[in-house]
Amino acid sequence: MNKDSTIRIKSLSGGAAAAAGFMAAGVACGVRDAGRRDLGLLFSELPCETAAVFTRNAVKGAPLCVTREAIETGGVRAVVANSGNANAATGERGIEDARAMQDLAAEALGIEASEVAVASTGVIGVHLPMGRISSGIRAVSDELGEGGAGFAESILTTDTRVKVAVVRVEVGDRTVIVGGTAKGSGMIHPNMGTMLAFLTTDAAVEKSCLTETLNRVTDRTFNRVTVDGDTSPSDMALLMANGAAGNEPLRLDSPDYPIFAEAVEGVARTLARDIARDGEGATRLVEVAVDGAASEESAAALAKSVVGSSLVKAAVFGEDANWGRVLTAMGYSGVAFDPDGVELWFGSIKVFSGGEPVPHEEAEANAELAAGEVKIRARLSEGDASATAWGCDLSYEYVRINGSYRT
Amino acid sequence: MNKDSTIRIKSLSGGAAAAAGFMAAGVACGVRDAGRRDLGLLFSELPCETAAVFTRNAVKGAPLCVTREAIETGGVRAVVANSGNANAATGERGIEDARAMQDLAAEALGIEASEVAVASTGVIGVHLPMGRISSGIRAVSDELGEGGAGFAESILTTDTRVKVAVVRVEVGDRTVIVGGTAKGSGMIHPNMGTMLAFLTTDAAVEKSCLTETLNRVTDRTFNRVTVDGDTSPSDMALLMANGAAGNEPLRLDSPDYPIFAEAVEGVARTLARDIARDGEGATRLVEVAVDGAASEESAAALAKSVVGSSLVKAAVFGEDANWGRVLTAMGYSGVAFDPDGVELWFGSIKVFSGGEPVPHEEAEANAELAAGEVKIRARLSEGDASATAWGCDLSYEYVRINGSYRT
Repeated sequence: MNKDSTIRIKSLSGGAAAAAGFMAAGVACGVRDAGRRDLGLLFSELPCETAAVFTRNAVKGAPLCVTREAIETGGVRAVVANSGNANAATGERGIEDARAMQDLAAEALGIEASEVAVASTGVIGVHLPMGRISSGIRAVSDELGEGGAGFAESILTTDTRVKVAVVRVEVGDRTVIVGGTAKGSGMIHPNMGTMLAFLTTDAAVEKSCLTETLNRVTDRTFNRVTVDGDTSPSDMALLMANGAAGNEPLRLDSPDYPIFAEAVEGVARTLARDIARDGEGATRLVEVAVDGAASEESAAALAKSVVGSSLVKAAVFGEDANWGRVLTAMGYSGVAFDPDGVELWFGSIKVFSGGEPVPHEEAEANAELAAGEVKIRARLSEGDASATAWGCDLSYEYVRINGSYRT
Repeated sequence: MNKDSTIRIKSLSGGAAAAAGFMAAGVACGVRDAGRRDLGLLFSELPCETAAVFTRNAVKGAPLCVTREAIETGGVRAVVANSGNANAATGERGIEDARAMQDLAAEALGIEASEVAVASTGVIGVHLPMGRISSGIRAVSDELGEGGAGFAESILTTDTRVKVAVVRVEVGDRTVIVGGTAKGSGMIHPNMGTMLAFLTTDAAVEKSCLTETLNRVTDRTFNRVTVDGDTSPSDMALLMANGAAGNEPLRLDSPDYPIFAEAVEGVARTLARDIARDGEGATRLVEVAVDGAASEESAAALAKSVVGSSLVKAAVFGEDANWGRVLTAMGYSGVAFDPDGVELWFGSIKVFSGGEPVPHEEAEANAELAAGEVKIRARLSEGDASATAWGCDLSYEYVRINGSYRT
């Protein structure tokens, strides 16, 4: 690692390494083909408070089990991650391999093993090539300080773009940075489908406040993204706070807490939208906004049902403003509502109201689906709660990618 | 209608019109293009007991509301059905149109309106062309007695094949026929996605027994089929029993009831499998069998989760024996189980056991996915309950069909 790095406000392009005191790097160690970066390391020079959210899948990858233990011990300040192999459904040897990754990273960074989180993403049911991983960890620790771009790249699988976001806000008289990077693409769904998200901040935040913040933000952002309805055994979101900004540690009742919380949510929302936009085979980002619902929970369930419907997704791909499929998807969401009280829009075109179609130029409605960002809106007459969910269209390319992912 | 028809045992190829006393026909009336049959009529010369199961979608098509009323009144003995237009999300006028269909059919058959069920399937949110429907009902009532093939064809939408099944069994000293026809294809899912199924029998069956039979059979067959996870506002299954066989009316505790129930389940299972096999764009039937589960309910939830996974479906299409996706889909089913106690097979090839991959020739496992009927089996170590679910692969053709359904 780069012993000369100093704690200061860095470039806002740095993603997970943008906040003061964080460093990151990514290298190619040969888990994936063709020299692609596949091994990443993220490190805070200062001790951290760290909160985590894990997949709800009953099948859990080995790295997740090891990381959960570290989080419970407290003080996680580093992440070692690989792509190309999820180290899931790999039995006892999988756990040993994940622990070995943790130990190797701790040794390279000069910290305790319990301070290192481990994350793996990729194919399921294949043991990790530990020789390559081991060389990779040594190599990547020498690159620390290169900024967040290499790390952001190293965690990608079928993603076509790196996903980074950074926000700067004033907390009291201090400038605070919240940054992050994520990977997604396929198997993304409400409840943390194959998704890794690493959020960092130089704010000082009390542990319970950090945990509450990550839970709420995850629920409103990452858990509102769906690509194909599948969820994965390997997914996690971490939020690490190292306090380098020197502010009074934030609590839920701190006057400036809302500013900080909105910064974290803004970073996570940007990453979530980028994950949806980069869904496997996606040609368009689809944003579904529901308002007039009885509760935020039911608004979110309705929005997620629409954005997750294969028929809606295929209609968007085909630029066919088939609002009947939107209404139908709301109908099977499990939320009770009065269909006659629903209004629907594609972009600015109102297509349904009062239980009946609203006369409109179909070509204009179809044109709303031709944009790179498609907006579908539903207004109910049940209350005043709202929620937004994000997804993508369903294309031939999705089928091609997932018919031959391993080959 | 054909006044000369007599009550007798007819050809076993007759589908919903195979049982004694049932007649059916289908004509082209111009709701769909190109002279395709789109208006069907099914009629029992004798009064019937009739049971029904309806969609659980919160949005319900107008015909469903009208039919539910008729079922509650009792004595439904005819079905008038059209394809090409679902008469759903069509407001008050939709209800009036469905009632008009009911009245017109009743008049043509010389029975009460409350004895007629109405079913519509097709595009959502467009008013029915009632002039054509009206001419169609007059025309189809003159064709009754032609057998079940025309009726079976008239209810199809994107289906590529008619779906009919007939079973003959002995109940006491009487021969009993159970027949049926169904349509499915897209929007098929557990909980009655766009599916119509009309089952008929000449057995005499008490109403409560008939209702219980249809509920249980639906749960084990139609509700275990998934094509794309979407469910529709329009779907229903009916089971009509006219007693022409002359048996002592069956009750749940009748000695021969199990024979009858198995006949109904056999017909429904055949139709359900045919629906899965003919899923939009499907190239293969996928059958997922789960055993060793704690309950039939949890076995069914696990099987349905696997058969509904977009990633599993795409893997089958690509002939890629990616068992990690099977295990993952079980993991997000909502059922708690021990992943280390799971064994997985593709056809006869065991691929996972004891928490780890089972070494196998990947080419052999992939070959199991190349068959027209793909069998995936999961054995848990939780209990001794089992369940089977059916679906299909996810192909480019699915995307093509649903990107341009209305054009």
